[in-house]
Amino acid sequence: MYENGYNLEPKWKEECGVYGVYSHTEDVSGMTYLGLYALQHRGQESAGIAITDGAWMDVTRGMGLVNEVFRHQVPHMENQCIAIGHVRYSTTGSSLLANTQPLMVNYAGGKIALAHNGNLTNAAEIRHDLEQQGTIFQTSIDSEVFVNLIARSRQETIEDKVIESLKKIKGAYCLTIMTESKLIGARDPQGFRPLCIGKTEEGSYIISSETCGLDVVGAEFIRDVLPGEMVVIDEDGIKSYPFATEEPKASCIFEYIYFARPDSVIDGQSVHDARFMMGRMLARESGCQGDIVISVPDSGTTAATGVAFESGIPFVEGLIKNRYIGRTFIQPTQKKRDTAVKLKLNAIRSVVEGKRVIMVDDSIVRGTTSGKIVKMLRNAGAKEVHMLISSPPIGYPCYYGIDTSVRKELIAATKSVEEIREYIGADTLHFLSIEGLKQSVSAVDPEAMCYACFNSAYPIEDGEKPAGDSKYVFEQRKC
Amino acid sequence: MYENGYNLEPKWKEECGVYGVYSHTEDVSGMTYLGLYALQHRGQESAGIAITDGAWMDVTRGMGLVNEVFRHQVPHMENQCIAIGHVRYSTTGSSLLANTQPLMVNYAGGKIALAHNGNLTNAAEIRHDLEQQGTIFQTSIDSEVFVNLIARSRQETIEDKVIESLKKIKGAYCLTIMTESKLIGARDPQGFRPLCIGKTEEGSYIISSETCGLDVVGAEFIRDVLPGEMVVIDEDGIKSYPFATEEPKASCIFEYIYFARPDSVIDGQSVHDARFMMGRMLARESGCQGDIVISVPDSGTTAATGVAFESGIPFVEGLIKNRYIGRTFIQPTQKKRDTAVKLKLNAIRSVVEGKRVIMVDDSIVRGTTSGKIVKMLRNAGAKEVHMLISSPPIGYPCYYGIDTSVRKELIAATKSVEEIREYIGADTLHFLSIEGLKQSVSAVDPEAMCYACFNSAYPIEDGEKPAGDSKYVFEQRKC
Amino acid sequence: MYENGYNLEPKWKEECGVYGVYSHTEDVSGMTYLGLYALQHRGQESAGIAITDGAWMDVTRGMGLVNEVFRHQVPHMENQCIAIGHVRYSTTGSSLLANTQPLMVNYAGGKIALAHNGNLTNAAEIRHDLEQQGTIFQTSIDSEVFVNLIARSRQETIEDKVIESLKKIKGAYCLTIMTESKLIGARDPQGFRPLCIGKTEEGSYIISSETCGLDVVGAEFIRDVLPGEMVVIDEDGIKSYPFATEEPKASCIFEYIYFARPDSVIDGQSVHDARFMMGRMLARESGCQGDIVISVPDSGTTAATGVAFESGIPFVEGLIKNRYIGRTFIQPTQKKRDTAVKLKLNAIRSVVEGKRVIMVDDSIVRGTTSGKIVKMLRNAGAKEVHMLISSPPIGYPCYYGIDTSVRKELIAATKSVEEIREYIGADTLHFLSIEGLKQSVSAVDPEAMCYACFNSAYPIEDGEKPAGDSKYVFEQRKC
Amino acid sequence: MYENGYNLEPKWKEECGVYGVYSHTEDVSGMTYLGLYALQHRGQESAGIAITDGAWMDVTRGMGLVNEVFRHQVPHMENQCIAIGHVRYSTTGSSLLANTQPLMVNYAGGKIALAHNGNLTNAAEIRHDLEQQGTIFQTSIDSEVFVNLIARSRQETIEDKVIESLKKIKGAYCLTIMTESKLIGARDPQGFRPLCIGKTEEGSYIISSETCGLDVVGAEFIRDVLPGEMVVIDEDGIKSYPFATEEPKASCIFEYIYFARPDSVIDGQSVHDARFMMGRMLARESGCQGDIVISVPDSGTTAATGVAFESGIPFVEGLIKNRYIGRTFIQPTQKKRDTAVKLKLNAIRSVVEGKRVIMVDDSIVRGTTSGKIVKMLRNAGAKEVHMLISSPPIGYPCYYGIDTSVRKELIAATKSVEEIREYIGADTLHFLSIEGLKQSVSAVDPEAMCYACFNSAYPIEDGEKPAGDSKYVFEQRKC
Repeated sequence: MYENGYNLEPKWKEECGVYGVYSHTEDVSGMTYLGLYALQHRGQESAGIAITDGAWMDVTRGMGLVNEVFRHQVPHMENQCIAIGHVRYSTTGSSLLANTQPLMVNYAGGKIALAHNGNLTNAAEIRHDLEQQGTIFQTSIDSEVFVNLIARSRQETIEDKVIESLKKIKGAYCLTIMTESKLIGARDPQGFRPLCIGKTEEGSYIISSETCGLDVVGAEFIRDVLPGEMVVIDEDGIKSYPFATEEPKASCIFEYIYFARPDSVIDGQSVHDARFMMGRMLARESGCQGDIVISVPDSGTTAATGVAFESGIPFVEGLIKNRYIGRTFIQPTQKKRDTAVKLKLNAIRSVVEGKRVIMVDDSIVRGTTSGKIVKMLRNAGAKEVHMLISSPPIGYPCYYGIDTSVRKELIAATKSVEEIREYIGADTLHFLSIEGLKQSVSAVDPEAMCYACFNSAYPIEDGEKPAGDSKYVFEQRKC
Repeated sequence: MYENGYNLEPKWKEECGVYGVYSHTEDVSGMTYLGLYALQHRGQESAGIAITDGAWMDVTRGMGLVNEVFRHQVPHMENQCIAIGHVRYSTTGSSLLANTQPLMVNYAGGKIALAHNGNLTNAAEIRHDLEQQGTIFQTSIDSEVFVNLIARSRQETIEDKVIESLKKIKGAYCLTIMTESKLIGARDPQGFRPLCIGKTEEGSYIISSETCGLDVVGAEFIRDVLPGEMVVIDEDGIKSYPFATEEPKASCIFEYIYFARPDSVIDGQSVHDARFMMGRMLARESGCQGDIVISVPDSGTTAATGVAFESGIPFVEGLIKNRYIGRTFIQPTQKKRDTAVKLKLNAIRSVVEGKRVIMVDDSIVRGTTSGKIVKMLRNAGAKEVHMLISSPPIGYPCYYGIDTSVRKELIAATKSVEEIREYIGADTLHFLSIEGLKQSVSAVDPEAMCYACFNSAYPIEDGEKPAGDSKYVFEQRKC
Repeated sequence: MYENGYNLEPKWKEECGVYGVYSHTEDVSGMTYLGLYALQHRGQESAGIAITDGAWMDVTRGMGLVNEVFRHQVPHMENQCIAIGHVRYSTTGSSLLANTQPLMVNYAGGKIALAHNGNLTNAAEIRHDLEQQGTIFQTSIDSEVFVNLIARSRQETIEDKVIESLKKIKGAYCLTIMTESKLIGARDPQGFRPLCIGKTEEGSYIISSETCGLDVVGAEFIRDVLPGEMVVIDEDGIKSYPFATEEPKASCIFEYIYFARPDSVIDGQSVHDARFMMGRMLARESGCQGDIVISVPDSGTTAATGVAFESGIPFVEGLIKNRYIGRTFIQPTQKKRDTAVKLKLNAIRSVVEGKRVIMVDDSIVRGTTSGKIVKMLRNAGAKEVHMLISSPPIGYPCYYGIDTSVRKELIAATKSVEEIREYIGADTLHFLSIEGLKQSVSAVDPEAMCYACFNSAYPIEDGEKPAGDSKYVFEQRKC
Repeated sequence: MYENGYNLEPKWKEECGVYGVYSHTEDVSGMTYLGLYALQHRGQESAGIAITDGAWMDVTRGMGLVNEVFRHQVPHMENQCIAIGHVRYSTTGSSLLANTQPLMVNYAGGKIALAHNGNLTNAAEIRHDLEQQGTIFQTSIDSEVFVNLIARSRQETIEDKVIESLKKIKGAYCLTIMTESKLIGARDPQGFRPLCIGKTEEGSYIISSETCGLDVVGAEFIRDVLPGEMVVIDEDGIKSYPFATEEPKASCIFEYIYFARPDSVIDGQSVHDARFMMGRMLARESGCQGDIVISVPDSGTTAATGVAFESGIPFVEGLIKNRYIGRTFIQPTQKKRDTAVKLKLNAIRSVVEGKRVIMVDDSIVRGTTSGKIVKMLRNAGAKEVHMLISSPPIGYPCYYGIDTSVRKELIAATKSVEEIREYIGADTLHFLSIEGLKQSVSAVDPEAMCYACFNSAYPIEDGEKPAGDSKYVFEQRKC
């Protein structure tokens, strides 16, 4: 986007956040706009809102944050009654704008809009089949595959068309779909990605990737959409259509470790509590000794407070994060080593000087940033730096919606814990065990979760793992 | 585009201009960029360029003039070898950006990009059929219909796929199509819209809506694409595929009257010479008497010089056009009557004062602007104002690519010449006769032209005339 | 502005256009906005409008055309009663935005805004004096010098302060000045630049660089501001303050040749009529022989119609100008020779082929563009090209407001007429004589004009000619 | 800026941050750009950088954050050797862009650029005097007053000119000044605002409002600029010029409470340590009892960790802050009560439910936000909410650079602590005492500080307190 810009992106990237509102009395597009603000942490590359008044349908999409895309006005329509929204991550590529969501199309049954979070593992295969039958594709997103399945379905009702389509796809996904009269939500059979339902005092229904999207509009949490369930909201209220409920569950553990907002609750498990408990388990497992507990802000903070709670060692702020950086900055001409890290984080000398510092982070990607932070702490006078990571080492790619484009660079894929410790220069290094992780999510069934990025036990067994960077599989095919 | 902006659009709007370049040695995207500048008069609402290097394909499109869309850079690709471009008119509507061209899609055969000028008269029918078979539509442009036909064709080669598709569509169109290895051009069987082929000294091939697009890149005119002909350019050179050459021809006479640039040559007939001759015929038919001949700039100027030439009455500048207006301006709060006309045109008192003024224009739409100009001349002291129009009265809608959204407002649809004269306040008013018009295009067969907007003799007989504003027929269908 | 942009600027650049409105009933800022549109030809680099409601004062300025600076809204204030506006040319330099006008400042007497057209020949000297007394300068424009003189004046009334200041400055200028309650206009003693007064039916007063600025708001022309006159408009009506009327007059002849709009009248002389007469004189002097008369659009057209009228040789369009270019375009990567000229102009082969072409232009700068056009005509088949220029050769710099930064490149400064003819490749070349030029402006005293750029007879005798590029004299002094 | 935008500004606004770099080997503008990022918390409305190469000088300024103003490029000049920068807060007003800094002017001595942080208490008086002597003012910022004093000084050297000027002004300020060859820093006699000096390994000198601006470019802290000291850096190194060192000191205590970044050290006192100690003192004074300590992020967090440390009650995250809001958002059409607070903060139910919550914040402005947060916690199930504020009640306006435009709305100006508690709905409410505050800054002399906003003991005794909103005093004077 910015040719000379230096990228300051988050360490892990998930695909998206989805949202939907059905209401005949409240401002559906305004609520969707607020909901997308609450889900912004799930995707910062593009945003979009589609609305309908029961007859006309329109969509507004753009590159950037919600407050950039909707800088001058929030989409609105007289008598609007349904809206869906989308925020998304993705890296650079061709046709960026064309790939934004929600996707809106005409088909024989009318107009339909769709927002999608996740990754289909058999998209390439379906796409190939559809192309052989004469279908064209204008984008490289899975949503277009899905909407073609709906359009080609011979089923009579939109409900049956969607269910037939859902049965054909595999992978991790949550969908919000909008027709002129219905709001539909669906969650994949394994329940990889979260999706929940809320209701306002006035009776408006909300579908949201996370419960924090309900809170921001003052809606009550009703329940999670179940794995393998489709829900349809229209003037008759809400109906449930289980389409694949018998499959083993495999919710993504990384939603609890990093992706979801701490104030969200997924499948009955508070994200904050899970993260806090990971810190406590980590303290127990590591038997950490030190003078102070600090976190790598912001993602390491909840676990750090758990470490402090369990160990009795005080939690203090040792690293200050600059809140005004934005996603890119222009690298000045004369390059300074480590500028990006220094710009984001600074150590507080008076806090760490002469101290045995226990530093808590949620995960390690390449180890380079961790190494720079350790060095920054030592330069600020830290006597010892003990690093605690509130997740196991990540050694395997994810095929269910997390960007694994950096896989080859994953330090835990090729190095032992001791080698990583040496690489980042910490005095000690502890990762939380998978067992400890399981004990941290006691409100749900820990066995009904996906730990594949730690142990390669992929819950979808058909081996349809995209070869490389899955996002580009369609773009790369011929070009 | 600008909510409070006052529109200063041209009086007649055609759909588009198309362009394409095939070259292994020259800068295909840069040449397309220059070509679109030369074709800018054919469409000012959006512009786009698609390029390929033989493997990858990319498109850049945006709202606005060529120099707005490509303000900061011209699209470029290493080893680019084919490019197509498009400029387009269209009025406001939903999904403006989505409707820009060229359209670029994936299909079973690879990638394809397409730019389209004109209007299909059976698009709604084909679209309906395709939707019944499960096709989705993401835009409301005819190009998407056409590209779906190609994708669904069972023919083996791209040439056969395109020909099969061309045989299914009816209406007025010119197309440039690009695959990873071929540049294709096609012109409708009646030859409504112009399309020509050029070649540079280095052997690069150009396809352009008008010959002025060849001149700007220094290419030689080779020949026109024939009505009902498809041409394919690839590494083997250029091949011709006639697909419907036996149908009666019906080139649009309005290209000569108003649309095309005077320096273009269409089917062997110089546009300037046709327009100059219309002025001469008009002088003869009207037997005009006066002291000076002036034009309504810029579209009336060529005919005015013809009137002056034939009558011997001197041509002078009586109206000055402001060249800096742009397409919109903000109407100041306190509205002034006639601001838009005054801003665009001003009369020169010293020229017209006390004179019998012969004012030449190419056509009349609603008559309101003409009336304001007549009044402006009288206020500047003109003794008499004699209005000469270098085309017959336009009383019927066009279904072949000219925007007829103002049809109900066409003054000649409901008023006689005398009533029009009275309405605009001229002393006399003469329209060129259809016969005179035919004699003005002597380089071509005057009977092989479409005069339907003057006499309702529509060359395509199947009665598939869109009911209202044809551009919105798909958008309006359900929404 | 656009790093990779190729400049398409006009051939001669003057400094500015100024405008002012005083009214208690009409929309003063809206009228100023329209007036600036009409004066846009006098300056396309920046635009600004200052307004007051009698107490508060505000200014909005920006880089670009009027419709770019005021794209989204026209400045407005409740109960606004005075507005002044400015359009300006200038080349690139530092602090571009800071140098835009009107300038608005606080001083001991309140607030004052000022817009300035022209060039002070003793600005550097006054500036130096003011700096020695402790004055700071935030811009490099003459207006700041002038406003400091006003602020330092010990005179009691604003009228006396301005007059005292006017007496200190030398050079070519027109000013519009606004206080909270008065609109002031002033024109230099020689009357180099035009300035006129108009009045609407509702009694609002207008001050404008040219009469075309009166026409656009429907105002009647009252009279020109006289050389050496200041006029003050307030609630008591309009008052005249001659401050230097006895000096010899020296109106700029180039306003008639090139700068002013043809529909303006300056000091009683119609610009169109002057230009038309230049064409007639040129025909007489040159005794031109040929088949057709064509113009280099747009600045050569009026003279060309005069040549045609006098000679009886028909005027036709031989060159077509692209109206959509804008001021810059991105040069595509692979540079084409002559792209800029080709993009702007194209010859019509059917018009010029086999003909003896008489081509009329208003002036020649470097001769390169003229050479390319001659070549373009020959490539299009012209048998002979005879070039007529409706002004004498320009061999000397202007110190009174016309950009002479290209002086060293002025072809007539170093080459004879025959050498120029050879350089541009025309068959014959005729320049209008100074004597012929004088006969073309018969409505004014031809001896009360400045012809210094032709004959170096500079009307201001103090030898204070800036050494080089006068615009940068202040910027360059130390930096 | 955004007409329909809802403002999400920080609770207290200070005027500015200043920065300067002198170096013949390092990238001075690039370092200034990084330094401004680090100082961004001191001002988010506009940013600017001025640079010189020893001869030429240039400035780039704009509205917005550093990464918005310098989105596409960082200012740069060949052989640049000095740069100064500025970030600023200010509320809306006229001529926003004109009021950005650094200010750059020409005067008799050459060019000078100046960036200013703070508020002069006798600016209006000096300004009036200068205007009476004929000085004009183009902006409403104090910097223009100061630069006029320098320009009018009869002293010979720039050092003496600046000192003479410094002696004339009163109030709170820090300045960075740049001539073609010198970088100058100055701090007011009382030392209200911080200013420090750093040096890189390569010998480049830095002047920065806070030490965090040194860290980001890898510079070592040398020392603070002393109250009443001017430092001059040029090719001879650094020289000190005390100009008013005998006056009593009065550093702003609010820098420690709220403004400065926790990782900065001001006058030897770590901001983090002061803030942490305020938390500890607050715990002691309040004898707080509860189950958990939470903070209002981000400004309350350091004190909250101090409360937890002292009380032994665990610190946990109870409120989640949305990091993606930006400074404004569009209020959707159907207004929701409390949308802005909900968008920014959300309570974590699982953390606070059934708990006695101790909530720590740094200060209270109007009390409305605090009230909404308390309500949010109760809605999330908190059993009790005990509010601890790490500063005394703020009942008096600040005349030294903190925006007191909300003074009339200061809840502590009109309500007792008990009334405030009732208003915000907390179970208990404790403010830190002034005595406790003094004990929190033990590294400095607590008596050498300004506590005027708590106790009205204004350190500058001349009673020159601007009547109302000081920022507009000049703009309002006449308009």
